[in-house]
Amino acid sequence: MAGTRTRQAHGNETREFILATAERLFAEHGVAAVSNRQISEAAGQANNFAVGYHFGTKADLVLAIVRRHAPALEQRRAAMLAAIADSTDLRDWIACLVRPPTEHLESLGSPSWYARFIAQATTDPVLRKVVIDETVASPSMQATIAGLTRLMPILPAEVREERSDMSRQLIVHVCAERERALHEGTPTPRATWKAAEVGLLDALLGLWQAPFTSTD
Amino acid sequence: MAGTRTRQAHGNETREFILATAERLFAEHGVAAVSNRQISEAAGQANNFAVGYHFGTKADLVLAIVRRHAPALEQRRAAMLAAIADSTDLRDWIACLVRPPTEHLESLGSPSWYARFIAQATTDPVLRKVVIDETVASPSMQATIAGLTRLMPILPAEVREERSDMSRQLIVHVCAERERALHEGTPTPRATWKAAEVGLLDALLGLWQAPFTSTD
Repeated sequence: MAGTRTRQAHGNETREFILATAERLFAEHGVAAVSNRQISEAAGQANNFAVGYHFGTKADLVLAIVRRHAPALEQRRAAMLAAIADSTDLRDWIACLVRPPTEHLESLGSPSWYARFIAQATTDPVLRKVVIDETVASPSMQATIAGLTRLMPILPAEVREERSDMSRQLIVHVCAERERALHEGTPTPRATWKAAEVGLLDALLGLWQAPFTSTD
Repeated sequence: MAGTRTRQAHGNETREFILATAERLFAEHGVAAVSNRQISEAAGQANNFAVGYHFGTKADLVLAIVRRHAPALEQRRAAMLAAIADSTDLRDWIACLVRPPTEHLESLGSPSWYARFIAQATTDPVLRKVVIDETVASPSMQATIAGLTRLMPILPAEVREERSDMSRQLIVHVCAERERALHEGTPTPRATWKAAEVGLLDALLGLWQAPFTSTD
């Protein structure tokens, strides 16, 4: 029994190390540019098929990295939703989009790779849909989208969809560019993750409240 | 003389075909994922070093693709700037950011690759700075940024910088996701490039006019 537990513990450590290595390599080079073999080698696996053995296809591996962070994000967003209850302040609901990733990134410290990994994965022609669908499908994200929809009944469906896409794009790429700048030691518009969160909140509040021109 | 001209014409055609092939491959797979050798092969060059021979390094090749589109964008933006003169309507100045790329993409027809190429190039860890600097440095872009700065004197420098970055990120990724959806035949929030332009204009106007929270 002890032997089984030890082997399982080793297996879990190996899986964790492969996931961390893959996240870094994908963040640095893009999802399509990195092979399972390169990840196995960078993770110090003697067997070049280690990634395939532990995770299956590249889509499975990318989803496993997404799911490595999902519980932390889900927990933060669920707590925020419970706290705002049925708030009618749009800023509260937009904060449920913005703060979970910015606080998660702050908690990871620098260098983190998660923001750049998400930027690469959501720009990948093959895997972007899998990653976006997985993220949007979480219970707390569904509740946040429902809250935004309740507060914005005036927006036609296509404008709401468009502004949802824009919110995702802004959050993903602002965080990715900030994470890279912190890592490379280049200047950032805002000094801290908290300040970057405030900047995103201000901007997205303006974006969601902007008058719209119908183009039907 | 006629022979020289023909050889030059052939050389130009080869260069053009290599550029178009590289743009498509970078857009599909990411800049880091595609080697000069793969581009040479896909462009039907018997010599695997054709890309290096014609363009030098990958950074040179990426810049050559950017510069293939730059005159068309520059011409549209310069004409818009001349037409709005010293307008004090913020929407006019934001239109100078948005309309040149959306009209250019419309003129390319589908499938185009330019929007996805720019999204990939500006997400690439190595080449992103080269591409962003090249784009921002154009005379019409400098005049547009100066116009926005004149109209937004109330914004602290870091908020203006942050919102400039956000404008770029939104325009790049909205256009890239729309270009991909058109190519793949999947739904888009707006029916036409003109309508997508209007959606971006509305959203960016709200973003730039949003009240800001100082975090100094």
